[in-house]
Amino acid sequence: MKAIMVVGDGMADRPLRELKGKTPLEAAEKPSLNWIAENGVCGIIDPIAPGVPPGSDTAHLALLGYDPFKVYAGRGALEALGSGVEILPEDVAFRCNFATVDDHLRVIDRRAGRIETDDASRLAEGFKEVTLEEHPEVQVVFKNTLQHRAVLLLRGHGLSMMVSDSDPQKVGRLVLKVHPLDNTSEAGEAAEIVNGLTQHLHEILKNHPVNEERKKRGLLPANIILCRGAGKLPDMTLIPLQYGVHAAAISAMPLVRGVCKAAGMRLLVVSGATGTYDTDVVAKAKAAVQAIQSYDLVFVHVKAPDVASHDGKVQQKIKMIKKIDEMMGHVLRNVNLDETVVVVTADHTTSLSTREHEGDPVPVAIAGPGVRIDEVREFGERACARGGLGRIRGVDLMPIVMNLLGKVKKFGA
Amino acid sequence: MKAIMVVGDGMADRPLRELKGKTPLEAAEKPSLNWIAENGVCGIIDPIAPGVPPGSDTAHLALLGYDPFKVYAGRGALEALGSGVEILPEDVAFRCNFATVDDHLRVIDRRAGRIETDDASRLAEGFKEVTLEEHPEVQVVFKNTLQHRAVLLLRGHGLSMMVSDSDPQKVGRLVLKVHPLDNTSEAGEAAEIVNGLTQHLHEILKNHPVNEERKKRGLLPANIILCRGAGKLPDMTLIPLQYGVHAAAISAMPLVRGVCKAAGMRLLVVSGATGTYDTDVVAKAKAAVQAIQSYDLVFVHVKAPDVASHDGKVQQKIKMIKKIDEMMGHVLRNVNLDETVVVVTADHTTSLSTREHEGDPVPVAIAGPGVRIDEVREFGERACARGGLGRIRGVDLMPIVMNLLGKVKKFGA
Repeated sequence: MKAIMVVGDGMADRPLRELKGKTPLEAAEKPSLNWIAENGVCGIIDPIAPGVPPGSDTAHLALLGYDPFKVYAGRGALEALGSGVEILPEDVAFRCNFATVDDHLRVIDRRAGRIETDDASRLAEGFKEVTLEEHPEVQVVFKNTLQHRAVLLLRGHGLSMMVSDSDPQKVGRLVLKVHPLDNTSEAGEAAEIVNGLTQHLHEILKNHPVNEERKKRGLLPANIILCRGAGKLPDMTLIPLQYGVHAAAISAMPLVRGVCKAAGMRLLVVSGATGTYDTDVVAKAKAAVQAIQSYDLVFVHVKAPDVASHDGKVQQKIKMIKKIDEMMGHVLRNVNLDETVVVVTADHTTSLSTREHEGDPVPVAIAGPGVRIDEVREFGERACARGGLGRIRGVDLMPIVMNLLGKVKKFGA
Repeated sequence: MKAIMVVGDGMADRPLRELKGKTPLEAAEKPSLNWIAENGVCGIIDPIAPGVPPGSDTAHLALLGYDPFKVYAGRGALEALGSGVEILPEDVAFRCNFATVDDHLRVIDRRAGRIETDDASRLAEGFKEVTLEEHPEVQVVFKNTLQHRAVLLLRGHGLSMMVSDSDPQKVGRLVLKVHPLDNTSEAGEAAEIVNGLTQHLHEILKNHPVNEERKKRGLLPANIILCRGAGKLPDMTLIPLQYGVHAAAISAMPLVRGVCKAAGMRLLVVSGATGTYDTDVVAKAKAAVQAIQSYDLVFVHVKAPDVASHDGKVQQKIKMIKKIDEMMGHVLRNVNLDETVVVVTADHTTSLSTREHEGDPVPVAIAGPGVRIDEVREFGERACARGGLGRIRGVDLMPIVMNLLGKVKKFGA
């Protein structure tokens, strides 16, 4: 028995007046998702805990079977891992954004107009590795990933991850001074380094030829690097060791890739999987169908519904849900359903109204041999709430799936 | 107010094609179980945690209100306790099987053809107490219980329970060398003792007259003792102390009797309760009806549905469920329902397809005064999932029942 688990990022939502009180998932045509609900057991999941808005990192840790309250140690290291940056247990890693600020360091755009990956790469060329005059013992590694996203690593002995963010998270605010979150000298040193580095990179970026060029093209300059989510590598039992399975993951999002890699999953590269609206879901489906030949567990993540919610685009979100449905259709037509458990869920609710992650539960449906099929016939937030799984926690999903594969060790005799 | 709690061992199952997609519980005629569902509040229980296959020991600890992750210390001591073997806090106890091996110590049958209790007793006669030449300070106590089952106790100062099993758990495998599970000399010594003893008992058994006789009758010889589940007595607050109730238990299975005894319940002996297909459920019902006169809580366990699942016998399992229903019918007709809470559940799912304990939830129904009767009218895995209790953990059941009896202390003012 094998399992394919599909996560629509931020796919769950709240009812919208403009959809006549339906959620985007309820409003979308989705025959394949409905098929899974109709032929499976459904439920709702609190990714972290009831009412707690999850991050994509903590939610994915939970969906892969880890208690995020125990293992989570910041976004930075996971992002780095997912970006192919080699990260050592001592490293302090930050999730960074290329952003736009004015001369007073007031944030104009947190994503520098969602700068294209090409431009970001050219900007980052100048500071892949930086040596700090005042801290020559610390190695600084910078790597841009997708669009405005980047990773910063501080490599040195005994550096602390207990520092605040420079990213103020809101347009119109000043870039924040990073400060230590405890009284150790290690935290003080790390804060000092990030502040110095922020200033240093701003100097390099503000008159950078690429930015001059962007301005001419009417685009926002990426003239600062905002840091957040300082973290170290989490201490996790790998999925292959925990359950004795081979596992692979398909995702275009570095943070999710990082969680999957930290969990011991093989990261597959799918050409055309972009993490944006134009992502090629059929390419993802084909990759999943191929991967399930050699892996016991294949995890597929689609980022775009979350992007649509953050952008407040109702119809775009519905369109992305239809694309996920199309992807599932391809999977369902091409795997052996007599020996495959198919799971579909979301990592969190992203509300089109608030444009934020919310702590509402997400729907889940599990179809496959041995499943206690319930009476739910539609994959939606409210339909699934009446399902046979009831209300579970994110951390419970992986054991439930692995139990269907006969891979959970008996506790007791 | 009093309570009768009935557990059908391994009674829950997965849908079966040969039952047209129903589970054995759903397929069985069970008017009395349905009456409890219809006149009670229903739900599903994760005995340990979602997806985690329980042992009978951990599941019963949970159903009696103990967090198995906190109190469980191996099967051996519980089994010993339930077999009437006096066990001291320092003792290391093992659950043993009489088994059949070939000359290379390869397992032919893990239960020596489910040897009758009589034969096992005669074989055990020779080594009730063994003195080890190399460890004269250690007292060895061996006791056979039901059929192939037995208990081994190592009594000595500071012996460790941190040793592996000699039982390879699968036919065709060699008997395992027991090894220490930590680096202490106590664990090393315990492992050495078990290995020496295994060899010693094999020498006694292989040419034993009882085995010669068995071979002539075409039966498998019981020529080795397999050990597993090293454990000590768990540290538990007794049910009478926790809730201020008198509690009694009816079970033919030493392991479950041990859990009940460790919980401070009085073990009742019921003639005709065998733990096998021929168990006299009416005798159990009569004993429960009588016991509820003098106890506040009477716990009744029926082993046979689990045996049927392990044996892969669908119709036998349905038959055993009907017998449990018959038992409940007798109970319902003979207790005062105005002052009795009646609870029915299973300790775990045992799948007829996989023949193993699985981590799927089990149904529960609670009828009695004060209960918030829901709309569920059938006692089954899926019907109960729609019930008013929702999805709970095993460890929650006893407080829920004791609350109906007014026996749970208020927390706070």
